[in-house]
Parts: sequence; C-alpha cells; structure tokens
Amino acid sequence: MSQQRLIQIETDILGKNNSHADRNRSVFSKNGILALNLVSSPGSGKTTLLVETLKRLSGKAPASVIEGDQQTSNDADRIRKTGAAAVQINTGKGCHLDAHMVGHALEKLPLDPGSILFIENVGNLVCPAGFDLGEAVRVVILSVTEGEDKPLKYPDIFASADLVILNKTDLLPHLDFNVEQAIAHAKRVNRKIEVIQMSAKTCEGFDDWLGWLEDARERQALRDCQTKAAE
Amino acid sequence: MSQQRLIQIETDILGKNNSHADRNRSVFSKNGILALNLVSSPGSGKTTLLVETLKRLSGKAPASVIEGDQQTSNDADRIRKTGAAAVQINTGKGCHLDAHMVGHALEKLPLDPGSILFIENVGNLVCPAGFDLGEAVRVVILSVTEGEDKPLKYPDIFASADLVILNKTDLLPHLDFNVEQAIAHAKRVNRKIEVIQMSAKTCEGFDDWLGWLEDARERQALRDCQTKAAE
Ligand SMILES: Nc1nc2c(ncn2[C@@H]2O[C@H](COP(=O)(O)OP(=O)(O)OP(=O)(O)O)[C@@H](O)[C@H]2O)c(=O)[nH]1
Ligand SMILES: Nc1nc2c(ncn2[C@@H]2O[C@H](COP(=O)(O)OP(=O)(O)OP(=O)(O)O)[C@@H](O)[C@H]2O)c(=O)[nH]1
Ligand SMILES: [Mg+2]
Ligand SMILES: [Mg+2]
Ligand SMILES: [Zn+2]
Ligand SMILES: [Zn+2]
Repeated sequence: MSQQRLIQIETDILGKNNSHADRNRSVFSKNGILALNLVSSPGSGKTTLLVETLKRLSGKAPASVIEGDQQTSNDADRIRKTGAAAVQINTGKGCHLDAHMVGHALEKLPLDPGSILFIENVGNLVCPAGFDLGEAVRVVILSVTEGEDKPLKYPDIFASADLVILNKTDLLPHLDFNVEQAIAHAKRVNRKIEVIQMSAKTCEGFDDWLGWLEDARERQALRDCQTKAAE
Repeated sequence: MSQQRLIQIETDILGKNNSHADRNRSVFSKNGILALNLVSSPGSGKTTLLVETLKRLSGKAPASVIEGDQQTSNDADRIRKTGAAAVQINTGKGCHLDAHMVGHALEKLPLDPGSILFIENVGNLVCPAGFDLGEAVRVVILSVTEGEDKPLKYPDIFASADLVILNKTDLLPHLDFNVEQAIAHAKRVNRKIEVIQMSAKTCEGFDDWLGWLEDARERQALRDCQTKAAE
C-alpha cells in the first residue's frame, strides 16, 4: 500500500473519531459533566489513584468511571467497590480508547448533572495521544519509577495534556529520579502543562488534586453556561 | 470505512511485515547472529538492563543494538558509551518498530558472525505484540512497580514472548508486589514462558540472564548449522 493511501486512511479514522468526540462533548456539556481522560504507561497507578479519589469525592460530588483495558474487568471491579458506577471497555487487540467506544459506554452510565466522569485509557504512552474522546481535561500520570526522560521520549502525549500527575512519590527515597528535571522536560514539550506530585500510599498531593478538580469543574460549569447563553 | 476493509488493510500491513521479518531472519541466520526483541512498558528498565549486559559481554561476545523510540537518540547514546555499536530509529507518531525499519537499521551495523543483536522496541505493552521483527527470541521486561496483573491485562505481548524478565527487584521491599502471583499470571497466558528476576541496581539475576543468553546463542548456532546442512 502506498504511503499516501495510508495517510488518507489515518485521516479518515481521525476525522471520524473527532466527530464522535464532538458528540460526546455536547453530551457532557448538556448534562454539566466534567470529563477527564487519564493516560499513562501501564501500571503508573491510574486505577489506584481513581479509587482513592472516588473515596474522597464520595458524598461531595457524584462521579463515574469508564475503564479501558485490552482484557479483564479487574479495574472496573476495583472502581465499583467504592460505590461509583463503572463501565469496562475491553479493546482486545486495540491499543487505545476511541470516541465511538466512549459514546456507547455513556449509554450505560447515569450521567448525573454536575458529576465528574473519569475515563481511564488503556495503559499506553503513545497511541491514545491522537484520539480525542471529547474530554475537557487530559491528565498524564507519570510514575517516578519510569525515569525523568519520558516527556522527551514520548512527547505527543505530554504535548496534548493539561496536567501531569507525578505519581508514586513515596518511592523517591529509593530512586535516583530527579523531580525538577522531569518537570522541566514536561514543560519543554508543553509550556502550559501543570504538575501535581502525588502518592496513593502516603496521600501526598490529594489536597492539590481535589482542589484542581474543583477548579476544573467550576471552569466547566462556566463554559456550559456560556454555551447555553449563546444558543 | 467498513470493518471488513479495515481488517483487509491490517492483514496487508501484517503480511508485508512478515515478509520483511523473514528477510531479516535469513540475514541473522546467514551471519550466525542471535537477535532478541525487547518489549515492555515505557521505563521498565530496558536500556539500563542493556547497558549492564553489554558491559558484562564486553570481550566475550560481540554485540550491537537497535534502539526504537518515538523521539530522541538518548538511548542509543547511552548504549554507545559501552563501546557497542547502536543505531537509533525514531518512530515519530509510530507506536512500535516494524521489520522494514529493522531491515534498514541492519545496513548500518557490523553484523559480526556469532554476535548478539539486541533490538529495544518502543516502550509499549500493546502494539509491538503483532509485529515480528525476525528475532529468534522475544523478551518482555516487566518492572515490579507495574503490578502483578499486567500479564492478564495485556496478554498478547506475554503470549508472544519466550522470556519475562521481572525487573527492579531491588524495589520489592518497598512494594506490595506478589512475585509468585505475577509469575502465575504470566504462565496462565503462556504456559511455556520462562522467568528471570533481575535488578540493575543490586545485580541480582545477571548470572541467570547471561547463562540464558549463552544457551540461546548455542541453540541458534545449532539451528543455523541445520539450515545450512539442509540447503
Ligand atoms: N508505591 C506506590 N505504588 C503505587 C502507587 N499507586 C499505585 N501503586 C502500585 O502500582 C501498581 C499499578 O497500579 P494500578 O493502579 O493498577 O496502575 P494502572 O495505571 O491503573 O495500571 P493499568 O490500568 O494496567 O495500566 C500496583 O501494584 C499499585 O499498588 C503509589 O502511589 N505508590
Ligand atoms: N530501582 C531500579 N531502577 C531501575 C532499574 N533499572 C532501571 N531503573 C530505572 O528505571 C528508569 C527507566 O530506565 P530505562 O532503562 O531508561 O527504561 P527503558 O525501559 O529503557 O525506558 P524507555 O526506553 O523510555 O521505554 C530509570 O530511572 C532507571 O534508572 C532497577 O533494576 N532498579
Ligand atoms: Mg488501571
Ligand atoms: Mg530505553
Ligand atoms: Zn455505534
Ligand atoms: Zn498503537
């Protein structure tokens, strides 16, 4: 197959994805939902972070979760134990979620007004970068065990994100990880990216993260309000 | 685009890759080279492991390296410091190496008879699974920081591998990682898979790994000899 034909196919796939993403975005907007897309390497701590976050949100803000994985419903099972609604998407051979899959998962979720929807993507620092799911916010979780060079070596995903969570900071005393350098690398590929340092073990950073979420919800509510006023 | 058309395109791409892989394999066979494809999540320790391995092979077995990364030549630079020849492939948006890229990289390497060629794939636990590079041996590196569920959640790559290196064992005292369970999970998706536990920090497991490599070289030499006899 010619290179040109391959590029055409890719453009078609991304174009289709973008129209599904726009549809999801308008569902979120209509229902006043803040949607976050969580991306990272396998095992950086996405599900653990979500479980701890949902416990802290319980009774304060309604939240639900879409879990993306190649196989198993392990992560959705872990989420449901917190009482939150969760839908598992198994991608099989697929290496990332796309907006069409998310659209169908939305049909199975309560979509409470004012709620937060966390979408945990397949653990993959490459392929999810190009696929808008309709989210308002994209968060990259980088475990300090992965090394401070990841933003330079996998730049697309950091370039497309709003926030980096530097995770597993409890392990820092046992590693040579240079926090300042990791942050500098992330800012080099994305000048505007924000950073929160966290640990699910020591609970470091949860106040910052919950505050960040609250601010994002307020920004989202303001945007939704302006959209309605403009209609 | 129809689902059928997409499957057709994928079949074409994989078919083309397989013919390039066969070509690489015959280059390896003709030159008596043992080729290994190293796959893992980003930051599981592939390059660190290679650097330590090359230091120990120095003067004993000639070795060279192909480095796959989305961006930067950092990893090839780290390898060259050991004195080994290294070629960097930058995949850009690409999420895995393919056999065609490897074929071109081979043109730039010495290909010493009886040598070992390490191919470090892009850090990605999903997409490299389907792409044969012509290697004799596929090794998955799983860092103990990633959790013991990875073989079940990302089964294709474990199913396609010959060996799992359980890496960063020096961190075990600081984690809840269950080694036996991780091994059981890997064996559940691939009954024949072998396992070596290693740490680049404490040097645990290097004797096992170097012994394993030596055995693989001998098996490869025997196969090459039989191939020649059959011709
Ligand atoms: N030390 C430490 N370990 C953590 C932390 N957060 C998660 N872990 C561990 O990291 C491993 C992976 O955690 P998960 O939450 O399953 O990671 P994930 O990103 O959801 O993994 P995938 O969905 O498979 O990509 C598990 O063994 C967790 O116990 C942390 O803050 N500190
Ligand atoms: N504690 C500990 N850290 C390790 C070990 N091996 C590697 N690391 C650290 O893990 C991080 C990633 O190591 P790399 O060797 O760059 O990993 P990689 O798999 O080549 O990464 P990519 O090529 O980007 O996918 C670095 O900070 C290393 O210092 C180990 O055995 N123990
Ligand atoms: Mg998870
Ligand atoms: Mg590397
Ligand atoms: Zn549909
Ligand atoms: Zn991919």
